[in-house]
This record gives sequence, structure tokens and C-alpha cells, in this order.
Amino acid sequence: MTDSAVLALTKDLINRPSVTPEDKGCQELMGERLAALGFTLETMVFEDTTNLWARRGSEGPLFCFAGHTDVVPPGPLDKWHTPPFEATEINGYLHGRGAADMKGSLAAMVVATERFVAQYPDHQGSIAFLITSDEEGPFINGTTRVIDTLEARDEKITWCLVGEPSSTAEVGDVVKNGRRGSLTGDLTVKGIQGHVAYPHLADNPVHRAAPALAELANTLWDQGNEFFPPTSFQIANIQAGTGASNVIPGELHAQFNLRFSTELNEAKIKARVHSVLDAHGLDYEIKWLLNGKPFLTDKGDLLEATVAAVTAVRHQAPALLTTGGTSDGRFIAQTGAQVIELGPVNATIHKLNECVKIADLEQLTDMYQGILERLLA
Amino acid sequence: MTDSAVLALTKDLINRPSVTPEDKGCQELMGERLAALGFTLETMVFEDTTNLWARRGSEGPLFCFAGHTDVVPPGPLDKWHTPPFEATEINGYLHGRGAADMKGSLAAMVVATERFVAQYPDHQGSIAFLITSDEEGPFINGTTRVIDTLEARDEKITWCLVGEPSSTAEVGDVVKNGRRGSLTGDLTVKGIQGHVAYPHLADNPVHRAAPALAELANTLWDQGNEFFPPTSFQIANIQAGTGASNVIPGELHAQFNLRFSTELNEAKIKARVHSVLDAHGLDYEIKWLLNGKPFLTDKGDLLEATVAAVTAVRHQAPALLTTGGTSDGRFIAQTGAQVIELGPVNATIHKLNECVKIADLEQLTDMYQGILERLLA
Repeated sequence: MTDSAVLALTKDLINRPSVTPEDKGCQELMGERLAALGFTLETMVFEDTTNLWARRGSEGPLFCFAGHTDVVPPGPLDKWHTPPFEATEINGYLHGRGAADMKGSLAAMVVATERFVAQYPDHQGSIAFLITSDEEGPFINGTTRVIDTLEARDEKITWCLVGEPSSTAEVGDVVKNGRRGSLTGDLTVKGIQGHVAYPHLADNPVHRAAPALAELANTLWDQGNEFFPPTSFQIANIQAGTGASNVIPGELHAQFNLRFSTELNEAKIKARVHSVLDAHGLDYEIKWLLNGKPFLTDKGDLLEATVAAVTAVRHQAPALLTTGGTSDGRFIAQTGAQVIELGPVNATIHKLNECVKIADLEQLTDMYQGILERLLA
Repeated sequence: MTDSAVLALTKDLINRPSVTPEDKGCQELMGERLAALGFTLETMVFEDTTNLWARRGSEGPLFCFAGHTDVVPPGPLDKWHTPPFEATEINGYLHGRGAADMKGSLAAMVVATERFVAQYPDHQGSIAFLITSDEEGPFINGTTRVIDTLEARDEKITWCLVGEPSSTAEVGDVVKNGRRGSLTGDLTVKGIQGHVAYPHLADNPVHRAAPALAELANTLWDQGNEFFPPTSFQIANIQAGTGASNVIPGELHAQFNLRFSTELNEAKIKARVHSVLDAHGLDYEIKWLLNGKPFLTDKGDLLEATVAAVTAVRHQAPALLTTGGTSDGRFIAQTGAQVIELGPVNATIHKLNECVKIADLEQLTDMYQGILERLLA
């Protein structure tokens, strides 16, 4: 039996070992297929990262498929049942690094576009692909810089579908229609180092910080809202001490991260953190890093088309959620674009023996095609 | 001008670079002098450590000088004004590693004994020297094993004078008549590792531990008593986290140390720590290490003789304190001996350019001699 178009392309992509930030020719492979459909290709190289911007049509509205060709490292090869960069079918599943995150989505986007353009060669508006190879890395030279380039020439995305693996049990059971914001703080609490036998000559920063950290950990930041779970605060790292049991440390370092809803913003969070630390009389510094602002697509043509297309395939509407980590969608949403994420089941992503159900690749292709038809036919 | 006996011997000892656990012939040098006085020498070697037990007389009561020939490392040589292992006189001070901690004391003990024996060759009781070379190291193969050997053969020390640098501004201004106990706990608080974006699937041990640590740090353990300052609790080390900002740690490690008075003991402290951690519902383990029990010599012949001898030299009584770190006195006190610590000013010990006032060496010799006279003449 010959492989279907989407299965064959997914295999071709998996067989290229594009560990972040490598692309290993994945974009070239996709670009050839898109060029054949009349797309204009632009390869944007920033530092170590290759990005592809491909567009068919010059009119608005502009529908954009967004995704990444890079994958996370496979980890210990001897713990994989199959070689991670040799796509292998086992009992209806396709195994290989990137099968679910997100080479299956990329193949489905290309094949859905091929079918749609074959049926509607003179479709309305434009179709674009924004493909990067640094989503799994530091996300500095990928989507964010492509978006900067587009913004600089006033090229606006109307609707963006990100192929991140949004589904939990079956393909299309969950559509992400937003993401929480992410804010990281590197806190240094200052004390005075000394010998434990002479505590009056020292000032223990662990003792000073403990009640403040307890209060921050116990804070109810918000209640969330219809689309967002409550904001969460987590201390990810903490360190103080020289290793010796008889030395009172001079500094405490703690790194915390908030995943925050649209009920809050960066300024409000900073003010509340400072207020708690100040109330405890700490001598401290914080270095802040805003990893991403929250975004939400709670209405509009894209959301309607996605829900309808998914429902048509599954005979059941998807859940709309904003949970989980960040995605490159945050960079695109900042331009004012409507952004939705729809992709395969995420149970095995970033793990050993990553895989995707082959039937899901076919259904995902149908969903993507259905979205194009509802927006641009 | 010829060096006095105590100055000459201090120089000879400093010039031997006996960085812990090395002895570098210091004990041999002392032993030759003591043998000439009729002492019987026993060299006790345990693993990497050489110890000297020297005794003159076979009757009780037994007065013992205790001390150590090893010194802490000098640190960066280019920051010393003089070579650390070449004893150098500068403006009335003798510079060199070990000058104050405690080769000056060792020389004063030997010279005081020489003078006393010359005057009272048929003194009462016995005089002994318990000299180790691992006081600055892990204190495993030093005083504690010599004491074990003496205990096994039922050889009891009645009075012990430890030469640790007890003085703060002038020699003899402070006599230590006890030491606090020291108890260390290595605490592991268990949680469940996870992604910060999915806090409901994880259990952050930093969040769980923070209020419990705050409570322990804020606990009033006791009020101390006439001889001891209040018990103090210090968190010396704390660590949790993988280093990544998006991972909730699976475990928190904290190491704490208590310096405790005779109002408390090991069992009471453990019970209170467990009670706090249990009340906070933590899943935890603690590995305990008792570094030393507290001891106190609050009366008796040795204390009286020491106070009288110091007062005779200084024309002022010494303060009796139990502050500061631990000393080998704790091992000797466990046998039931009366233990007192008297030695030079400790301002420069364990530091660059360690030094001792030359006049203080003479005074210290007089004090030691005065103690011998009051107890054994």
C-alpha cells in the first residue's frame, strides 16, 4: 500500500534530524511543495536560525499557518524502541522525534493547502506559511524576528493557525484559543555572611526570605476568568549557602515564574511582588524577564471556522482552552492577529518514543482544509 | 638580645608548616622537652593523625594541658606581609600561621611546665599533655580517639586546660568555662517535579517548606542561662531546582545547625523540629549529626585556680564565657573532667597575617604556671 500524501511527507520530515536550532532541509522540502502551488518563498536567516516565509496571493485577508521544523533532542538513543530519526510505523502509529511536535502538523498544513488550492485556485485573500527552526530553543531568532520583518513592511496577518499539539486524548478534542503570559523573576535577598556560632554578627537571608516566599507562594493572584485558569506562581529554583554547615550565607537566590491570565499584567504583578517583599523589610534585587504576554482569541472568523471545521470531522465541538506552556502564538498575537492553535495529541511530546496516530494525521489534514475553505473559498 | 624561652619555642613551632592534619615534627620537639622533665611519652597514630600523650607522675589528681599542633591553611601567600611559616617579629608581635591558634599556647604550656617542675620536682598528682594534629580537620582521629584509649584503660583526667585562643582584647580577659552544643540537620522535603505550566500535576517542595522554615527560624528555643546565651538556629544551606525556570523542583534540601545551651539537649531539639515540620504536613527526611554536646565547668578547683592565676597576672578577673565555636574540650568534658579554655587573643586566627603579641606569650606562660602551682604545688 502506498503511503498517503500526509503520511509520506511526515516521514520525510522526521527523517531529517533537525534538533533545535537545525532545520536540516525541512523548510526546503516544504518550500518546493509550496512553490509548485504558486507561493513566493522568502528564506530569512537570523544568526543560527533559518526561517521560511511563503505567501500565495497579495490581497487581504491573510491566513497564515505557523509552525516549527526543529525538535527537542531525542535523549538516550538506547531507550527508544525505534531510531528517533527513522520514521517507523507500529500498530497504526508513526514513531519518531517530532512526529507530534510538530512535523505531522507541518505535513498536514502542506497537504491541506495543496488540496485547497487545487479546488480553489483563485481563492480569496492570501495564504502564508511562517516556519521557524528555533521554537524549541531560545526563540530569539525565529518567529519573533520574522514578525518584526513583516511589521516593518506593514504586512499584516489576519488569521493565524499554529500547529502546536493542542489535543489531549483525540485529535481536535482541544483547541487553544489563547495562552497565559509568563513572567520570570530572579530574586536576590541580601544578608550578611558570618559564622553560625556568632549569629549576632551576621544576618541570615534565608531566615529573612522564608516568610516572604511563604506569603508569595500562598497568594491568590486572581480567580482567572471564563477563558483562563487562575494565575499561578511557582518558585523554580532556590539557593543559598557555601556548602559548609557552620557558615551563615550572605545571599539567597530564588527564581520564580508566574503564568498569568488576562486579569493581570506585568506591571500589576511586579507591584504586588515588590509590595510583599517590601512589607517583610527585605534588602533585595529582582531581575525580571517577560517571556510572553497573555493573549486570547475569544471570538471572530478564525475561531468560528476552526470550531466548525473540527466539529465537521469529529462530530463533536472542541474544548477551547488556554492552559499549558507558551508558544510562538504569543509573538503573532501581539500584531493584532487572531491566533488559534490546533494540532495532534500531545501525550508523547518531548518524551522517548514520541509518536502520532496515523489516522489523526488524515483527520488533522481534513480540519486544516476545512478551515481554509470556511475562510478563503 | 636572646629570645625568651617561650618566644624561641613558639618560633620553632611556627617554622614547621603543619597544615592539618600534618604535625611536621612539632610533637617530637615538644616531646623532647617533656622527656627531659621526666615525662613518659606515648605517640598514638590513628590513620593520618599523629597524637602525643605525655605524662609525668602516676598518681591522681591528673592535670592535663590539651592542644593541637595543626594549623589551618595559610590561603593566598601573596596576601601575607611575611611568609606564614617563617616566624617574624614586627613591632612587638610575632607573625606566622598558628601564632595565636595555637602554637603560642603550646610553647607557653611547655615553658610553664619546665619552670614548675624545676621549682616543684616532687609535685602532687600528675601532669599530662594531650596534643593532637587534627583539631582543624575532621576531628575524627585526634583528641576523641586518644580519649577513647585513656577511657579504655581507665586513665582519668581530673582537670584539663585547653589552650584555644579564648581572649578577645587582652590575654586572659576571657576564659571559656564551657561550650555550646552543636547539632546539624540535613533536611530533605519531598514534592513532585513538574512543569510550571501544569502546577496541578506537581507539588512544589519550596512552597511547602517555606512556612515551616520561617517558623523554625523564628522559634525562641530557650532563654539561655547564667552561663549560656540563648540557643540559636541557623539555616546554612538551601537548594532546590534544576536551574530551568520552567520546572517545579521535586525536592528541597536544607541544612541547618543549632548551637545549644545546657537548657536543651539533642532529644528535645529533635522533637521540636519534627513537631514543626509535622504540623506543616511535610513529607520529609532528616539526617542528624551531633557535632558536640554542651559542657560547663561552673565550679571546682580548676576554675578557681584559673581565675586566681589570671587575676594575679592581669590584676583583673577574667570574664567566664561559653560563646564561640566548638573545641576539642567537648571530647574531654564527656569523661567527667573539669575543662577550662585559656589562650591568646583570637582576633587574627584563621586569617591572613595571624599574629600574637610577644608580651602576651610571657603573660600566658605565667598564668599557666600559676595554675599548676595552685593545683599541684
